[in-house]
Amino acid sequence: MSLELEGIHEECGIFGVWGHPDAARLTYFGLHALQHRGQEGAGIVSNDQGHLIGRRGLGLLTQVFPDESSLTPLTGDRAIGHVRYATTGSGSIENIQPFVFRFHDGDIALAHNGNLTNCDSLKGELEDQGAIFHSNSDTEVLMHLIRRSPEKDFMAALKQALRQVHGGFAYLLMTEDAMIGAMDPNGFRPLSLGQLPGGAYVLASETCALDLVGATLVRDIGPGEIVRVDDSGYSIERYTDQTCLSICSMEFIYFARPDSNIYGVNVHSARKRMGARLAREAPVDADMVIGVPNSSLSAASGYAEAAGLPNEMGLIKNQYVARTFIQPSQAMREQGVRMKLAAVRGVVAGKRVVVIDDSIVRGTTSRRIVRLLREAGASEVHMRIASPPLRYPCYYGIDIQRTSELIAAKKSVEQIREAIGADSLAYLSLDGLVDSIGLGRDAPYQGLCVAYFNGDYPTRLDDYEQGFLASLTPEDRTRLEASKGSYGLDMPAGSGQKINER
Amino acid sequence: MSLELEGIHEECGIFGVWGHPDAARLTYFGLHALQHRGQEGAGIVSNDQGHLIGRRGLGLLTQVFPDESSLTPLTGDRAIGHVRYATTGSGSIENIQPFVFRFHDGDIALAHNGNLTNCDSLKGELEDQGAIFHSNSDTEVLMHLIRRSPEKDFMAALKQALRQVHGGFAYLLMTEDAMIGAMDPNGFRPLSLGQLPGGAYVLASETCALDLVGATLVRDIGPGEIVRVDDSGYSIERYTDQTCLSICSMEFIYFARPDSNIYGVNVHSARKRMGARLAREAPVDADMVIGVPNSSLSAASGYAEAAGLPNEMGLIKNQYVARTFIQPSQAMREQGVRMKLAAVRGVVAGKRVVVIDDSIVRGTTSRRIVRLLREAGASEVHMRIASPPLRYPCYYGIDIQRTSELIAAKKSVEQIREAIGADSLAYLSLDGLVDSIGLGRDAPYQGLCVAYFNGDYPTRLDDYEQGFLASLTPEDRTRLEASKGSYGLDMPAGSGQKINER
Amino acid sequence: MSLELEGIHEECGIFGVWGHPDAARLTYFGLHALQHRGQEGAGIVSNDQGHLIGRRGLGLLTQVFPDESSLTPLTGDRAIGHVRYATTGSGSIENIQPFVFRFHDGDIALAHNGNLTNCDSLKGELEDQGAIFHSNSDTEVLMHLIRRSPEKDFMAALKQALRQVHGGFAYLLMTEDAMIGAMDPNGFRPLSLGQLPGGAYVLASETCALDLVGATLVRDIGPGEIVRVDDSGYSIERYTDQTCLSICSMEFIYFARPDSNIYGVNVHSARKRMGARLAREAPVDADMVIGVPNSSLSAASGYAEAAGLPNEMGLIKNQYVARTFIQPSQAMREQGVRMKLAAVRGVVAGKRVVVIDDSIVRGTTSRRIVRLLREAGASEVHMRIASPPLRYPCYYGIDIQRTSELIAAKKSVEQIREAIGADSLAYLSLDGLVDSIGLGRDAPYQGLCVAYFNGDYPTRLDDYEQGFLASLTPEDRTRLEASKGSYGLDMPAGSGQKINER
Amino acid sequence: MSLELEGIHEECGIFGVWGHPDAARLTYFGLHALQHRGQEGAGIVSNDQGHLIGRRGLGLLTQVFPDESSLTPLTGDRAIGHVRYATTGSGSIENIQPFVFRFHDGDIALAHNGNLTNCDSLKGELEDQGAIFHSNSDTEVLMHLIRRSPEKDFMAALKQALRQVHGGFAYLLMTEDAMIGAMDPNGFRPLSLGQLPGGAYVLASETCALDLVGATLVRDIGPGEIVRVDDSGYSIERYTDQTCLSICSMEFIYFARPDSNIYGVNVHSARKRMGARLAREAPVDADMVIGVPNSSLSAASGYAEAAGLPNEMGLIKNQYVARTFIQPSQAMREQGVRMKLAAVRGVVAGKRVVVIDDSIVRGTTSRRIVRLLREAGASEVHMRIASPPLRYPCYYGIDIQRTSELIAAKKSVEQIREAIGADSLAYLSLDGLVDSIGLGRDAPYQGLCVAYFNGDYPTRLDDYEQGFLASLTPEDRTRLEASKGSYGLDMPAGSGQKINER
Repeated sequence: MSLELEGIHEECGIFGVWGHPDAARLTYFGLHALQHRGQEGAGIVSNDQGHLIGRRGLGLLTQVFPDESSLTPLTGDRAIGHVRYATTGSGSIENIQPFVFRFHDGDIALAHNGNLTNCDSLKGELEDQGAIFHSNSDTEVLMHLIRRSPEKDFMAALKQALRQVHGGFAYLLMTEDAMIGAMDPNGFRPLSLGQLPGGAYVLASETCALDLVGATLVRDIGPGEIVRVDDSGYSIERYTDQTCLSICSMEFIYFARPDSNIYGVNVHSARKRMGARLAREAPVDADMVIGVPNSSLSAASGYAEAAGLPNEMGLIKNQYVARTFIQPSQAMREQGVRMKLAAVRGVVAGKRVVVIDDSIVRGTTSRRIVRLLREAGASEVHMRIASPPLRYPCYYGIDIQRTSELIAAKKSVEQIREAIGADSLAYLSLDGLVDSIGLGRDAPYQGLCVAYFNGDYPTRLDDYEQGFLASLTPEDRTRLEASKGSYGLDMPAGSGQKINER
Repeated sequence: MSLELEGIHEECGIFGVWGHPDAARLTYFGLHALQHRGQEGAGIVSNDQGHLIGRRGLGLLTQVFPDESSLTPLTGDRAIGHVRYATTGSGSIENIQPFVFRFHDGDIALAHNGNLTNCDSLKGELEDQGAIFHSNSDTEVLMHLIRRSPEKDFMAALKQALRQVHGGFAYLLMTEDAMIGAMDPNGFRPLSLGQLPGGAYVLASETCALDLVGATLVRDIGPGEIVRVDDSGYSIERYTDQTCLSICSMEFIYFARPDSNIYGVNVHSARKRMGARLAREAPVDADMVIGVPNSSLSAASGYAEAAGLPNEMGLIKNQYVARTFIQPSQAMREQGVRMKLAAVRGVVAGKRVVVIDDSIVRGTTSRRIVRLLREAGASEVHMRIASPPLRYPCYYGIDIQRTSELIAAKKSVEQIREAIGADSLAYLSLDGLVDSIGLGRDAPYQGLCVAYFNGDYPTRLDDYEQGFLASLTPEDRTRLEASKGSYGLDMPAGSGQKINER
Repeated sequence: MSLELEGIHEECGIFGVWGHPDAARLTYFGLHALQHRGQEGAGIVSNDQGHLIGRRGLGLLTQVFPDESSLTPLTGDRAIGHVRYATTGSGSIENIQPFVFRFHDGDIALAHNGNLTNCDSLKGELEDQGAIFHSNSDTEVLMHLIRRSPEKDFMAALKQALRQVHGGFAYLLMTEDAMIGAMDPNGFRPLSLGQLPGGAYVLASETCALDLVGATLVRDIGPGEIVRVDDSGYSIERYTDQTCLSICSMEFIYFARPDSNIYGVNVHSARKRMGARLAREAPVDADMVIGVPNSSLSAASGYAEAAGLPNEMGLIKNQYVARTFIQPSQAMREQGVRMKLAAVRGVVAGKRVVVIDDSIVRGTTSRRIVRLLREAGASEVHMRIASPPLRYPCYYGIDIQRTSELIAAKKSVEQIREAIGADSLAYLSLDGLVDSIGLGRDAPYQGLCVAYFNGDYPTRLDDYEQGFLASLTPEDRTRLEASKGSYGLDMPAGSGQKINER
Repeated sequence: MSLELEGIHEECGIFGVWGHPDAARLTYFGLHALQHRGQEGAGIVSNDQGHLIGRRGLGLLTQVFPDESSLTPLTGDRAIGHVRYATTGSGSIENIQPFVFRFHDGDIALAHNGNLTNCDSLKGELEDQGAIFHSNSDTEVLMHLIRRSPEKDFMAALKQALRQVHGGFAYLLMTEDAMIGAMDPNGFRPLSLGQLPGGAYVLASETCALDLVGATLVRDIGPGEIVRVDDSGYSIERYTDQTCLSICSMEFIYFARPDSNIYGVNVHSARKRMGARLAREAPVDADMVIGVPNSSLSAASGYAEAAGLPNEMGLIKNQYVARTFIQPSQAMREQGVRMKLAAVRGVVAGKRVVVIDDSIVRGTTSRRIVRLLREAGASEVHMRIASPPLRYPCYYGIDIQRTSELIAAKKSVEQIREAIGADSLAYLSLDGLVDSIGLGRDAPYQGLCVAYFNGDYPTRLDDYEQGFLASLTPEDRTRLEASKGSYGLDMPAGSGQKINER
């Protein structure tokens, strides 16, 4: 889980239920399955016959809901919940979701997973018109747009608002009489509808949450779709026809839980295929394969089986250390205090090892892993990465927004190898990634967003465009501008493949 | 980690350091590597030029030491620490260690891992002589014995006290001018001495803690040994010559971290060998091997490689759920809310799976696992257990003290198979276990305690003897009494192999 | 302090400072002097070179700011703070002030003491225009009005907004470059400007806060005034000329601290005069005078001196009991468990006592006091109230909004006497009250609001008018309608004495 | 309450009940009435059919028992409780009482108010015999003595133990079948037995706690008495006949609540008499009398009435400030930030005031009060102290153990007057004090301990004797040695008046 170690974070998980007598508790359990998507904060809003009741707080679900009494007030048979991703320092209760808005004509709760590309512009415009924002979050913008819509009907106003926000988003709303999910036109983030044995409907960021609560998948919510659940059942419609699937490939590589399925593809199996493909693309003569726990264990297993090598537990992760605020002194670090990962000397000593990791962000974790293994006696350390080099930021909801953080934006593979001290280094090819996931859709990259690897963003970048261009090397800029017409920065409005254009 | 799910717990981990400028912080990190040995409480006592300063509390290390300021007062270059095992309800701050005793002639801190068999008798005798106890713990008894010893010299008094306590124990003491570790005559619990690059000495329950702080193993502390570390270095001596190694085999099977070495045996590798031996003892025609996360993954890997089957991630553990106090309602449970373990449908559907687990306690977890896998579509579920059937309580520090909790005490293997609903079930043989661990010592069972499997306790049971005999079936009782002379309940005093006899 | 016992509460205290190097700390101390005005919550916002930094929370100041580290982040030489009044259950962090609003064109903090009469209408109108409110508080309305004002200049926009809100208010704002206080056109709530020895300016709800921080009074902020403090000093102007002083008489009777001065009148001395006047209006043949602690001790002292009777401590208040959430069982109550007040048997046994209290709300406390004194052996208990009967709600910031709670709205003085079980009962006359306070202003009731006693509200009631009329007896309604022309419900717009009319 | 401001503290309050269905709750309320005797910590131990259940913690009662659920586990119809006095820094949970001791032959809970003079000697002896102490408190010593007593019968063992401890103590014990109170041979601390309407018995440090729970006084527990309450009722006996009443005079001067009675003397009335006597002993030509709130208000009232002067509220105490951990900076202090006391300008400006305070410890508070009053415009400030100069430490339970802290130990009255800046200063005479309290007993000083004023300690000082002698001036030493024979340091053993001699 080197990504976690280096601080790339998913932005949030959402879960909602309609029609279960203990809706808040079910949401609590559903959010547990999504806790890996956000550990900064959590909240649940229940709907008791139209009355919305919320509780939210900083920290893990178990901190926000420490005991039964914390759930007791959340009565009603409908609820939505949210887990928020972890950052350092910015954590403020104002930003914890779901937000509850109370109006004289009814209450609305809103939660959000994703990132808008035109949020700043919209906020500026709205403030100039007198709007007051209470959070840093992109989420609030949607509510202002809904409330200012001239449309009288709520669904019409919502659709109009959705057409104004650009970027990646999966919204989850609870009004007095409906639960609504809405997906951006590219379907960047996963969202699935499920049904419980008793008939209640469930919306969740990942199918692992459906499984945990015992729900059956009804279907994934696709690009540009709105799903509305109320007492008459569910209905799905589209608020735009300018859609094109480009779901975040990092969900398959790192974020999603291995037991989740996205558009029918099991994440663990996709990772095994990435590992197997990597074994074929970049074989190595070695004694054993080692996966970096926990996110790279599937890929390591795929590599080992394809390579015919034993798959060993040569690295161990300290599961309890996640949330310590106490750090080793510099002297201790130099003496080798190793908090999060340990190499197992008895396994690796004297061996030539292939280490499988899902990705390299800054390179510091990889360097540490190589050093740990060498100190534990490994005779050779070959690093194999089960995805292509990360070179560009994400603007749709993953917390990598600066090119300068990415080692592969500045260095060649050989330079990276040298920096991390490995005997050899290889990455999975982009084609290898796309084929291993195997969505098989009739869309660019089979329906995946792979912009982090090749800069080919499937939408305009709006407020981020200037900064992005400024961060590029001249060659990159030339290359990306040449890609106009299929994907890129300067897309003509109305192009069939393009979306988010009015 | 089915044992964890069913509530068998190790009693505690200990860590100490002598001669490092930031001793308390180093102890904090050392305890992190031992956190799996106890999550109920933690404490650290530092020694600043003879002045002992302590902090202890309920919960995980990160809860007891939430921030830098919690370590700041623990100045000095010597410290000892303790993590305490988790039970429900009995958690009381009085029992959290290390204990600090303040006397007009100096302070002493004391921590303890293990269980005494004659604690109640000793406490009763001491109380009749006016002693007052402040905790439920076995630990305090030792201090009363030391203080009442007629010996003037502290080390002499300590040795006299150690000869009076029976059972399993690894004591760690901090006096004003020395750090002392003491092991019971059987060496039931692991304890290792290490040295840091700068020369400081470290004592830890497991070598993984030495690794985490960058220390090199000096040697394991053996049966009946006392190690004393002071400013002149370390010395090791024996307080009794009636010793016989019988280290707890459950350390190898379940408790110890896979990256620890015990008497030179790497735990992960031992587990792989148990899995491989199990594959030979109990093969099965199947499509894949699945380990129960996290403790059985090593054994599963060994089984898969020996059997030539793919090793898949068919079960996933929800790592965040450990400490929730909110439970699903009965209705939710029946609908299938699954908090801790999930089966990965995309992996197991339609497959014949071999599930490897380290042990079965009550059988409830195994039954749940079988059901999860069947619901996820597995066509056959074969359970293989990488240790022999658990049939007898432990009196030396593991929290299984009632035969009635153990399904294998009451049922045959076939009856257990039926109870858990598996297509087949097999356990590793006792010989298989002993050989796989491979201590190779010239002692019964190669130096292991395997009493949980065969009732062959390596010491008198003292206060527990009556209860143990009462819990046996008549046949068992006959069988165990017949084993007199080698191991058993009625050992003649002074026997060479026997220890703890006065 | 019977009012406190029965649940009448002031709405809030405010404090601000401009130009002191440790502004947040000074605000902390200033708020301490105002803690009696609000115990539900507290907050401080500092201004560090234009950057606003806030902290707020539920509970007392010492709970919200438990230690130095809670003040440390609030850097800067300018700050405003707020203490919020205590209610049961409604306490929600969203409503704790000061609010901080962050706009692309700068931050503004806002705190408020008072109640608007047209808040609901304004909120409805604003929501219909797309505004979103995040709190229940009246405070937020002002910010929406400011932001929607067509005026470009902030002060002009603020004045326009202030002319739209009706009722009682003292607002305190912190912009990036100024601290601003604003008073409603009637000056219902007290607000004073002071100056520290070093030159810094201070705004506070009461002069006791000026005294605590060592500031000298500059002057009280009067009806319709805005005071602006910035780096060039302070300036005061009026945003309306339709003003008429009618400061809340309850400030003199009960709320304000005895060491505060309001428009030059010392509160303690005013209370002594009320007591002395009451002694003349309603003398009684008795052995001693007893004040109900703590708020009635001044009045009792005035009564005793005027009557020539000893002033005794016959009732004692348990100062620590204020915030317990544990209540006596009904059986204990019947057995006489007395949590808050105790009668001193050694003082009152066998005596004829005159008890002075500041007011009677529901009568339950008075009944309890009479019973306590009789049980302690008092031979006669004469109750004297140092204000007129409370018969009408307050709509300007005191938490008595329902006539049905007021015993004097439904019962005659003789009926109240019977209900509370006193030997005699008398209230201070309205003239007696007005003269004792002695503001001596050329305004109705010498510049006091006495509507709680006679229903003569100095403004329109706006959103409350319907409810108020519905709560009246027919006679009362006739009487109050007859008072039109001087004060009342149906005032012609533009009348010289009237204010808040556009 | 200048004593509180300067840090003299009572050591603890105790409360117990036998035979009430909700004993822990009743104890909670009883302790509320005693909260003024200790704010550092609190605890309650209930006895449910012989099973003792305890809860204790740091802080106020409302912090230790924050809600109903904190009392719920304390079932049973018998309970004892304790509030512990406040000191800075030394607060440690180990020292919070009641202590619960669990023995194989039954549980015992123990609480204590007082201080032993031979505690250190006893602890040293006991440790040499192997005893282990877990707290700093004097309390534990008694339990060790009981357990080591050769007496088989508990009451006999207790009496033997009580004869070994010297000094001031009121012990409260709960065994499985009895509640026991024990008083030292001088009756230094107050303790009263009461009875509830339903028949239950109550023991409390002050009668105000009896009043709060609705109990009637049965009788005070006198010197050398043991009261035992069990299901057969209560019995009182003496464990020594070497008794002589010398109850702490500071209870009357400062500690006890004004509504308490001690040996039939109402504390408020005693204080009024001290004030009246002081008016006669030290009259002054002035405009008004001002009491220092809260403890000196009774004395001020007595002074004013005797002097024919108005009694005014010229000083006000900030009741909320008690527990802040945030302090004004030095600059703020110099600028006049006044946290705890404020002078009321409107009352004192231009007036000649007599300030009544109960005592002067270091003089810092008096100096501050004089300055506050002068800054508020008082033209003359005359300080009158309603007790004699404090010159000697207390060794029986009041936290003044160093002569060097006492301004009157080093300075004459005129020097103190100069130091505090008053226009005049006078103290009540020792005879005035003794007569005003008016116990009227046939014992030295009518049964009061007045050693703080004249050094005439009613017992040997044991472990403190050396330090006390060393702290004396040569003259004092000569004077005190001359007083041998009546009271003093060198009393012959067995003297009729003397006690605590074996």
